[in-house]
Amino acid sequence: MKQRVGQYLMDAVYAAGVDKVFGVPGDFNLAFLDDIISHEHIEWIGNTNELNASYATDGYARINGLGAMVTTFGVGELSAVNGIAGSYAERVPVIAITGAPTRAVEEAGKFVHHSLGEGTFDDYRKMFEPITTAQGYITPENATTEIPRLINAAIQERRPVHLHLPIDVALAEIEVSETFQPEDVPHQDVKKYIDMIEDKLKSANQPLIIAGHEINSFNLHKELEEIVNQTNIPVAQLSLGKGAFNEENPHYIGVFDGEIAEDKIKDYVNNSDAILNIGAKLTDSATAGFSYEFDIDDVVMINHKNFKMNDTVANDVTLPSLVHGLKDLHFENKNDYPQYERPQKNNYELSDQPLTQETYFNMIQDFLQLDDILIAEQGTSFFGAYDLAMHKDNTFIGQPLWGSIGYTLPATLGTQIADPQRRNVLLIGDGSLQLTVQSLSTMIRQNLKPVIFVINNDGYTVERMIHGMKEPYNDIRMWDYKALPAVFGGDNVEVHDVNTSEELKRAFEKINSNSDRMHYVEVKMAVEDAPVKLSEIAKAFASQNK
Amino acid sequence: MKQRVGQYLMDAVYAAGVDKVFGVPGDFNLAFLDDIISHEHIEWIGNTNELNASYATDGYARINGLGAMVTTFGVGELSAVNGIAGSYAERVPVIAITGAPTRAVEEAGKFVHHSLGEGTFDDYRKMFEPITTAQGYITPENATTEIPRLINAAIQERRPVHLHLPIDVALAEIEVSETFQPEDVPHQDVKKYIDMIEDKLKSANQPLIIAGHEINSFNLHKELEEIVNQTNIPVAQLSLGKGAFNEENPHYIGVFDGEIAEDKIKDYVNNSDAILNIGAKLTDSATAGFSYEFDIDDVVMINHKNFKMNDTVANDVTLPSLVHGLKDLHFENKNDYPQYERPQKNNYELSDQPLTQETYFNMIQDFLQLDDILIAEQGTSFFGAYDLAMHKDNTFIGQPLWGSIGYTLPATLGTQIADPQRRNVLLIGDGSLQLTVQSLSTMIRQNLKPVIFVINNDGYTVERMIHGMKEPYNDIRMWDYKALPAVFGGDNVEVHDVNTSEELKRAFEKINSNSDRMHYVEVKMAVEDAPVKLSEIAKAFASQNK
Repeated sequence: MKQRVGQYLMDAVYAAGVDKVFGVPGDFNLAFLDDIISHEHIEWIGNTNELNASYATDGYARINGLGAMVTTFGVGELSAVNGIAGSYAERVPVIAITGAPTRAVEEAGKFVHHSLGEGTFDDYRKMFEPITTAQGYITPENATTEIPRLINAAIQERRPVHLHLPIDVALAEIEVSETFQPEDVPHQDVKKYIDMIEDKLKSANQPLIIAGHEINSFNLHKELEEIVNQTNIPVAQLSLGKGAFNEENPHYIGVFDGEIAEDKIKDYVNNSDAILNIGAKLTDSATAGFSYEFDIDDVVMINHKNFKMNDTVANDVTLPSLVHGLKDLHFENKNDYPQYERPQKNNYELSDQPLTQETYFNMIQDFLQLDDILIAEQGTSFFGAYDLAMHKDNTFIGQPLWGSIGYTLPATLGTQIADPQRRNVLLIGDGSLQLTVQSLSTMIRQNLKPVIFVINNDGYTVERMIHGMKEPYNDIRMWDYKALPAVFGGDNVEVHDVNTSEELKRAFEKINSNSDRMHYVEVKMAVEDAPVKLSEIAKAFASQNK
Repeated sequence: MKQRVGQYLMDAVYAAGVDKVFGVPGDFNLAFLDDIISHEHIEWIGNTNELNASYATDGYARINGLGAMVTTFGVGELSAVNGIAGSYAERVPVIAITGAPTRAVEEAGKFVHHSLGEGTFDDYRKMFEPITTAQGYITPENATTEIPRLINAAIQERRPVHLHLPIDVALAEIEVSETFQPEDVPHQDVKKYIDMIEDKLKSANQPLIIAGHEINSFNLHKELEEIVNQTNIPVAQLSLGKGAFNEENPHYIGVFDGEIAEDKIKDYVNNSDAILNIGAKLTDSATAGFSYEFDIDDVVMINHKNFKMNDTVANDVTLPSLVHGLKDLHFENKNDYPQYERPQKNNYELSDQPLTQETYFNMIQDFLQLDDILIAEQGTSFFGAYDLAMHKDNTFIGQPLWGSIGYTLPATLGTQIADPQRRNVLLIGDGSLQLTVQSLSTMIRQNLKPVIFVINNDGYTVERMIHGMKEPYNDIRMWDYKALPAVFGGDNVEVHDVNTSEELKRAFEKINSNSDRMHYVEVKMAVEDAPVKLSEIAKAFASQNK
C-alpha cells in the first residue's frame, strides 16, 4: 500500500491509542497537518502556544496512556521543551513531532527562518537528547522502522520521544506493507530478584510498600493491589504518584511525607524493617526534604530499569516484569499497622467570614465525586490536595517532581479531552494561572466542561512560604480573574465569586445542579494563609538551599 | 572588599550597562533576588512567565545594548530557551542566569524537584550550549573570572551567555579586589582585507553595500554611514536588520527583498559588480526564498567573525574591526543609482468601508513620529511594515530570522522599559498576541505607555498565506481583545475600536492628543487580506517546503 510518511505516522500514532493530536501550526508542518485533519480517527487540537500544547499532551497522556504533539522547527519545538522535560521526569509518554525544513534545505545549509542562521540544523535535536528517551530523524527510507522504534520506546519507557520530520519527508510516498502495532513486550524472568525479596519479607516484622508515580505511568494499579492483598503488606503512598494505590483498600495507611506525616504513619514507616519502594522516588518535595529516618540503603528499590537491593543492582529489568513477578508472593498478615482514616464529612462550619485554606480543602474533600479527576497545581493547591482522600475511581494529577507552575491549566485541557465523560476538577492559584492562562480559551473552544477553582491570594504563595513573604518579587499583577472566560469567548461558562465558606457551598450546589457547562470559580483567600503541609515543606526547601 | 557572589554579579551586570533585570522567581533563585531588589541601581521586572521574560530581555537588549534575566533551574530556564535561541540567531546580547540547587545537593545527586529525578544536574546546561556563545558554572572560587569572561563574551559576540548559579554560591561571600568593567577590545589589523576590498571597488562600475542586522547588534550605524558618505556606494537594506542604515541618507536605495523588490532596486542589485554584504544575512525571508540573481560567491561577506572574499575566509576577524577598517576608503561617485523614494503623505482616502491592509500600512506610515521605536510582529505586521520609510532617529524591531510568533508583545515590554521617553509603537496580530498575551499585564504593572495595534483578522494569516487558507488548523478562538487591558488591571489604558480608515484616523488623533497613557487599538480586517509582500514571500516559503 502506498502512503505518505505523514499518513503512516498518523496511522501508527492512532494504532498506539492516540486520537487527539495537540500542537501549533507553523510553515514547516502545515502540509503535514493536512494528513492529521483528514485522518478518519484523529482530531487536531490547535493550541495557543507550544508550552501549553506540551502540557496538554502530558495531561492527555496521563489519562489516555500516550499522547502526541506537533510543533514547528526551532521556535515551536523549543517552546515545548519545558513540558517535554516534565513528561520525562514524571514518566509520561509523549510523541513530540517537529515539522522541519526539507532535507534539501538542510543539506545545502541554507539560512532559513527558524534556524540559528549558521547553516546548522542539528542544534535543536541535540537539545532534545537529555529530555527524551529516544530520538529519530525520519526519512522515507527509515520511516517504517524508525517510527515503530520511537513509538515503542515511548510506550515501553513511559517517556517522551522526539521525531524530526522534514516536511518533504512527511509528504513523500512510501510503500507500507503492514500498519504499525505496538510491540507486545513479554515479561522478563525476574525470579532471582523476587526470591531475594521474598527472603527479606519472610523475616520482616514490620514490612511496608511505598508506592509511587511509576505505578500510574505503567498503569499497574490492579497488579499492585493484587500483590498487597496476597501479601498483606501495608502501603504508604508518596504525594509524588498519589493515586498509585487504592485508598479504599484496608492495607492503605496514608501518605508518607517524611517528618511532616502523621505520627502513626511516620512511626510505622521509619521503623519498618523491610521497605519495598515500588515505582516511587523519594524526592525532596515528597519527603519534606529527605526527612525520613529509615536507612535508604536498606530499601528495596523497585523502579523501572532501576532495581536495587543491598548490593544487587539491575538496570535492565522493567517495572512491569518485577510487579508481575511479585504476584507470586503470598503471606499471612503478621503485624498490626495503622489504618488509614478517611477525613470526616462536613468537617467545617459555614460562615460569612473570609474563607481559610483549611476550610477550603475540607470542603473540596466533600465536593469530590466518585470518579472525578482531581488536578492540583504545584503550589498551595497541590500541598493542600495531596492529603485529600481519594475514592477508588478517582484520578489524582499533580506534578511535584517537575514542579512547573502553570502546568495544570493546559494539563486539564488534555485530561478533560482524553475523557470528556469524567468530571475534571482543577485546583489552581492566581500566580500559576497567569503563566498559561490562554489555554483556558482552548478549553472553551473545545467546549470542555471542567470545574476550575482559581485561588486568588495575590501572588506566588509557594515562593512566599519558602523565602520573601513580603518581597516584591513574589507579587503579581492583580487581574480581573472572573472576566477571563468572557474574554476568551466562554459565553456558556458559569462564573462564581467566592469569598466565604457559605459562598463556596452555594457555588458547589450550582456546579452540581448544572454539570453541562464549564464552571469557573474565583476563590479569594488571605495572602499569608497556606495549607499546613506547604508551610512545612517550604521550610525544608529553604533549608535545602543553604 | 567582601561581597556575596550575587552582589558581585549584579554590580558587574550594572557596570556592563544593565539597570533592569527580567525574570520569574523560583525557590532556587529567591535568596539571590534579594541582592537584585536591594541593588541601588537595578530594578527587578517580574514577568508572568519565562518565555515572556526572555523576549522582554531581548527587546530591552536591542535598545539598551545588553540585557539580563534570571530564571530558576529546569522549569524556568527551559521555558526561556526559545527566546534565548532567538537572541542567539539575531545576535542580541543577553545574560541568562539560572538559580540552581546547591553544590551539595548536586554532588549528592539528590532527587530534587525541577531535576529529571535521575540524580544528574548537567542536562539543562547541555541544552544551552547550542544557543549561547559561552556557558559557565559559577563557584565562589571562579566568580571573579567567570562572570567577567561571560559578560565580555555576551558583549563581544552580541549573543546570549548562560550562567549556572547554585543558590549557595550566590550567597557565598568572596573577596573582591576590583569591580568588573567590560573589556575594551582594540580593533584588529584588517589592512589586508581592506586592501582586497579596495581593489575590488576600484574597478567596480556598479558597487553596492547590503546592510543588515549585525550593524544594529554592534551599533555600527555611524561608522557605516561615514563609510558610505566617503565611498559614495549606494546601500540597500534587508528586511532582516532594517534600521541598519539611515533611510534619509541620499545613498540609500531601499529594501532589497529578492525578486519581489521594486524593479529599479532589483536591477541595480542583481547587476552590481561589487557587492559588500556588511553585517547582513541573505536569509529566505529576507530574499523571498533566495531569489537574487547575483552570484552569491562573488559577494564580499563582511560578517562578525565570518569574512569571506573569493577564496579568502577569516573566522577570527570582528565586524567592528572590519567596519573600522573600511573607514580608510574614499571614492568619488562613479555611477548612477536609483534614489530611494519616500512614500507620499496622505496616500489613502478616508472612508467608512472596512479597512484594508494596504490602507492600514499607508496610514501607519503617516502616524510614525520622528523618533518612534516601531516593533513589528513576524506576520502581516512585519511584512507590511518593513517597507515603511523610517526617519533617521526611528528604530525598527522585527525578528525575521528567528521568526517566533508572539515575540513582539513581551519584546515591547523590554524596548519600552529600556527607554520610557521614546514612543513605542507595536504592530501585532491576533494569532501572535494569543501566545504571549499575559505580558500585557506586565506592561500595565510597570505603567508603560506604548501604542499597541492589534490586527484582528481571525487566525494565523501568515500561515494561511503559505498553506491552508481555509484549513481549521489556521483558525484561532475569537477573543474579546478590547477587554484585555481591563482584565489585566489597565484602568488607565485607552482602548480604541477600529473597523474603517475613518476610525483609524480618529484613533490616531486621540493617541496623539494624549501621550501620557497606554493606547491599545483593535483593528479589524478581512481574513484573506494581507500585505502584498507577505503573499509573495509566503509563495516562496510554500515552494521551499516541497
